[in-house]
Amino acid sequence: MNEPDNRFSESERQGLYRAIRERRDVRSQFLPDPIPPPVLARLLRAAHHAPSVGFMQPWDFILIESLEVRRAVRAIYERENRKAAENYRGEEAVLYRRLKLEGILESPLNLCITCDRGRGGPHVLGRNTILETDLFSVCLAVQNLWLAARAEGIGVGWVSIIDPDELAGTLRLPAAVYPVAYLCIGYVNEFLARPELEVAGWRSRLPLHGLVHGNLWGRPLEDAGLEAALRDEQAPDVGT
Amino acid sequence: MNEPDNRFSESERQGLYRAIRERRDVRSQFLPDPIPPPVLARLLRAAHHAPSVGFMQPWDFILIESLEVRRAVRAIYERENRKAAENYRGEEAVLYRRLKLEGILESPLNLCITCDRGRGGPHVLGRNTILETDLFSVCLAVQNLWLAARAEGIGVGWVSIIDPDELAGTLRLPAAVYPVAYLCIGYVNEFLARPELEVAGWRSRLPLHGLVHGNLWGRPLEDAGLEAALRDEQAPDVGT
Repeated sequence: MNEPDNRFSESERQGLYRAIRERRDVRSQFLPDPIPPPVLARLLRAAHHAPSVGFMQPWDFILIESLEVRRAVRAIYERENRKAAENYRGEEAVLYRRLKLEGILESPLNLCITCDRGRGGPHVLGRNTILETDLFSVCLAVQNLWLAARAEGIGVGWVSIIDPDELAGTLRLPAAVYPVAYLCIGYVNEFLARPELEVAGWRSRLPLHGLVHGNLWGRPLEDAGLEAALRDEQAPDVGT
Repeated sequence: MNEPDNRFSESERQGLYRAIRERRDVRSQFLPDPIPPPVLARLLRAAHHAPSVGFMQPWDFILIESLEVRRAVRAIYERENRKAAENYRGEEAVLYRRLKLEGILESPLNLCITCDRGRGGPHVLGRNTILETDLFSVCLAVQNLWLAARAEGIGVGWVSIIDPDELAGTLRLPAAVYPVAYLCIGYVNEFLARPELEVAGWRSRLPLHGLVHGNLWGRPLEDAGLEAALRDEQAPDVGT
């Protein structure tokens, strides 16, 4: 069915699926060891090879080692997190305050991946109806980097509790540039077997088969074989 | 530096980087062969293992084989694309009209990946400041699926020239559910060596080193070794 040179070997396929399965949002396991330049370049190149609407490549990468800058970012996080904590009551509030949600200072490197909303001029191919497609493209780049990092034994944590305007000011972003992702990056002493929020009892993974619809929203799948495959949580990624 | 069981083998690492490098936005090379249920389940499970803000997993997957539904979606695309084409003049307009930008009917399967903006209740952990983080999470799921598809010899094309309200109506999405990505999926007879828009002369890949900043926007990198590594477009992904 496929041309032979399209095919991945089992171990190549295994590598991709392993990165997907074992990638974690890391907050607590960072080691201080610096990331060697060739490894860091591979991570950034992985991000740069993401798809983008109209091939606009709207991303930039700000590598932040400066403790002064990181302390300023952490102060933004702390203000936002105090506000966020007020949303919870009772047991949930206790659990929320116990969760560690960022590693801005413990990780050896922070990385802000931005979106230049003006890149490519006013008419970017494919971006006429949905203007947010440039932000979506940057997210695809984030995921490439996140997976590549896992394959290198490097953890990544996305700090989403942050005010983007304050962050943009701190990093001196031009007006048209939006900070999509603020990431903490570094080698780790372990990758947790399950997502940290699941381990902490915050939320569970949803059953996949409940999220798949046939042809229209809410319609069941017509293919019983697919339904069974979706329910089989133990299905191997390769060899079948 | 790393625990031994964190490490990927060279061929595992190679598999991940190969998927990243060889993934394409496919519009023209689709084969009609159906995707076997176990393979399709692997793709959806890859998407489902994406990170999401507060572990909210806001995605649903609508698998569309129905020709009737696909024809309705293609009609939405055609209306939008006529509008889009009017943005270009002269040579660019000629080139734009020559580009093939979707494979809705030629691919054997369409997949809409949606975002349930109400999933997880009003206070999703990490989503208090930036409400779009749920859409961003869905994009991360899209990229997982896109890479897994490449490893399986399956092409994916994202149709971004589409009116999301009309699409939501056609697929009968509930009010709180937004259609983030409309994808065309199928085995392909080839993956192009370079992105189709680059081959067509629409736009070129930007040099990576020009997109990387040190500590603040516009500041140079302090590490000459990293600067050199970023400029080395031929650097191997593994073995170094």
